[in-house]
Amino acid sequence: MIIPQIPKGFRDFLPGKMNLRKKIIGAVTEVFESFGFEPMDTPCLEYAETLEGKYGEEGDRLIYKFQDRGGRSVALRYDLTIPLSRVVATYPELTRPFKRYQIAPVWRADKPQKGRFREFYQCDIDIIGTESAYADGELVIITYLVLKKIGFDNFLIRINNRKLLNAFAVKEGINDRQVPSFFRSIDKYDKIGRDGVMKELQNNFTVSKSLETKLDDYIFSEENRKQTGLSEIAKLVEGMPAGDEGLRELETIRDSFSAYGVPEKYYMFDFSLARGLDYYTGPIFETIVTEPRIGSITGGGRYDNLIGLFSRNPVPATGTSFGLERIVTVLDEMGIGGSDGTMTRILVTLFDADLMADNLRIAKTMREADLNVEVYFSPQKLKKQLSYAANRGIPFVVIQGPDEISQGTITLRNMNKGTQEVLSLGDLISTVKNSVLQ
Amino acid sequence: MIIPQIPKGFRDFLPGKMNLRKKIIGAVTEVFESFGFEPMDTPCLEYAETLEGKYGEEGDRLIYKFQDRGGRSVALRYDLTIPLSRVVATYPELTRPFKRYQIAPVWRADKPQKGRFREFYQCDIDIIGTESAYADGELVIITYLVLKKIGFDNFLIRINNRKLLNAFAVKEGINDRQVPSFFRSIDKYDKIGRDGVMKELQNNFTVSKSLETKLDDYIFSEENRKQTGLSEIAKLVEGMPAGDEGLRELETIRDSFSAYGVPEKYYMFDFSLARGLDYYTGPIFETIVTEPRIGSITGGGRYDNLIGLFSRNPVPATGTSFGLERIVTVLDEMGIGGSDGTMTRILVTLFDADLMADNLRIAKTMREADLNVEVYFSPQKLKKQLSYAANRGIPFVVIQGPDEISQGTITLRNMNKGTQEVLSLGDLISTVKNSVLQ
Repeated sequence: MIIPQIPKGFRDFLPGKMNLRKKIIGAVTEVFESFGFEPMDTPCLEYAETLEGKYGEEGDRLIYKFQDRGGRSVALRYDLTIPLSRVVATYPELTRPFKRYQIAPVWRADKPQKGRFREFYQCDIDIIGTESAYADGELVIITYLVLKKIGFDNFLIRINNRKLLNAFAVKEGINDRQVPSFFRSIDKYDKIGRDGVMKELQNNFTVSKSLETKLDDYIFSEENRKQTGLSEIAKLVEGMPAGDEGLRELETIRDSFSAYGVPEKYYMFDFSLARGLDYYTGPIFETIVTEPRIGSITGGGRYDNLIGLFSRNPVPATGTSFGLERIVTVLDEMGIGGSDGTMTRILVTLFDADLMADNLRIAKTMREADLNVEVYFSPQKLKKQLSYAANRGIPFVVIQGPDEISQGTITLRNMNKGTQEVLSLGDLISTVKNSVLQ
Repeated sequence: MIIPQIPKGFRDFLPGKMNLRKKIIGAVTEVFESFGFEPMDTPCLEYAETLEGKYGEEGDRLIYKFQDRGGRSVALRYDLTIPLSRVVATYPELTRPFKRYQIAPVWRADKPQKGRFREFYQCDIDIIGTESAYADGELVIITYLVLKKIGFDNFLIRINNRKLLNAFAVKEGINDRQVPSFFRSIDKYDKIGRDGVMKELQNNFTVSKSLETKLDDYIFSEENRKQTGLSEIAKLVEGMPAGDEGLRELETIRDSFSAYGVPEKYYMFDFSLARGLDYYTGPIFETIVTEPRIGSITGGGRYDNLIGLFSRNPVPATGTSFGLERIVTVLDEMGIGGSDGTMTRILVTLFDADLMADNLRIAKTMREADLNVEVYFSPQKLKKQLSYAANRGIPFVVIQGPDEISQGTITLRNMNKGTQEVLSLGDLISTVKNSVLQ
């Protein structure tokens, strides 16, 4: 006998959980499609060289990599952005702007721990081929709509712009080339705190007193950073052309929110947001859930230079990603997941093996009326069949013996109320359908 | 620059194809759920020992296997049946009968060739925990309903029973233990022909003249095998208890078809059907498309001993699998796929950058009326924006300049007809919605 086991950090999704995931994916998809995004899929395996060197040193180490039978080095997909960039370079005939969504698993050979898995789903939307900040704004509007639709309210979308961060760093005397490393350190604030970040910065850069004060005021102070507005950010980058451009983009994004009616309580311009990946070039955004505290549940930004790695022509691009696993976790903790639901409405019990043909016929009629109906296969004791329905969470049970058949009636049992009524098949169908609408 | 490439035998699915796949998966899912099947998912990676030794010698060689970072041997999922068996053994608390569906990719390191891929989707339904042949019958009824629903008509579901084949072989003097190898040879008929199979059989068994005649009459003769009925099969296994049992099961299946109204032209009892996998123990079935000839598009059967490999208690089980790739190929060849469709109904063009806020507002109203609407981001020439809509296949375009805005009207262009009308926003929405219903 083989002991049944799955690799650490991997999960089975049994029907209850899977129904919840399907519900969320359905809601997310509906919003994506309402904005003109189309589905796309890429292979789970890519050549290793396609993925390597794109996710930073730590990311590279987490790539699941192996040799295929032909001796080529292949790797499991690490995210959905690099495969998309590869696709855009492969098919230059794709109409631009190209708006696609992809909802698919990715793999990272991370240390498994609570809430962190080696196989998890990402839901990504990206807009390829436009430099317009309205595209970035649309991604944030969608973020807001998706989260509201699946039942979130306690969330805050943080927004910043890499151009502003760059302008700030250069203005403060950080060498152009060292800017990414400067912000990688700052991005660690949530993990290693103010002193940890300052230590890293002082090791690598000359940190002036004035810079330290600004970091304390705008980045390390949770108090202050909540109050940062665009006008305050403007002061930090005054006189830097890249700063002006970055500000104009954020203003466009703000305009799009107000035109679309996104309430101000759901977003903030936050100069402390840096985001880890090197490839961002413009607006960046991430969503934090204010309660329960679980880290970010969405994140993204503009990456105008990434596709250029695979293509002679650089192509502007922006995108964002929803972390399905964290969203499910939060919904579960908030008790609004309803994770044990079944989509089956009726169980047709079997009184006697000879009545199976009758059961199949009434089940057929009920299915043709768009009800999900299960037929029980064995003429076991009714009690056993009822307890099967109860365990599955099926809300209605049909009981039909020879008496009912000769009278042309059916008994319908409401499992939640414990009540029974004798009905015609037509009335039974409307009773169940009306109860579904409740 | 990295040359954009994907591994051989793997595919990107761009939006047109992906919309077709989504449509098929949606239709399949709807039928599955109408019979009480629930979604389930398992990891793409399993421990290699979970998969190895289950698919025969050739199957084992095709498993994508590698060492994970901890030195454990892991493998990409080869099918959905073995992971299901592992799940059933892992969670004995699952209510039985356990009916689940899973629609997911599997991987085989096969030689890539036309219509054969290394990554492809399977759509599986299985019923765990019942020996009733009505369960097998239900799988075939679903096969019929799914294929009709997605537009197939020229198909034939072949049905046989391993118990009948075993009874026949034993009656003909084949040693019990050699029965599987006997039928593996017979299963090669489609590939190596009558003479190839006879040669293999004569090398391994004593093939009597009487057996050879029966093989010619019931297995090698395409003419005859189409006419085989249960009464004829009965003669082949007369006097064998396993044969009687197998016949009774097929009769039950036939009864369920007639109760459910499955027309006789869509199925046949076919004694020549063996199916390759060793693990089948009872009824087996597969669907062939009669035109175009493409091999089987569904296949399955009862496997009462498989779960016992992972569990102290044997658990009866039956299941079937729909080959999504072949189904898509046939739909494409039949021209009923409509593979270039978009789900986006309207493109809102941008006359002038200053009008973006107006565009966002009307797009919002249209989306709230359940229309999929894309907003164009740059105020490029109208001609360019119209050609974008045409390339995407978006059927309606909204044009709104300062004049229209001051008059409270909008111009709607029907891209297929090339006509335009000036409407209020409300009338525009109903015009588009009504056209969707056409």
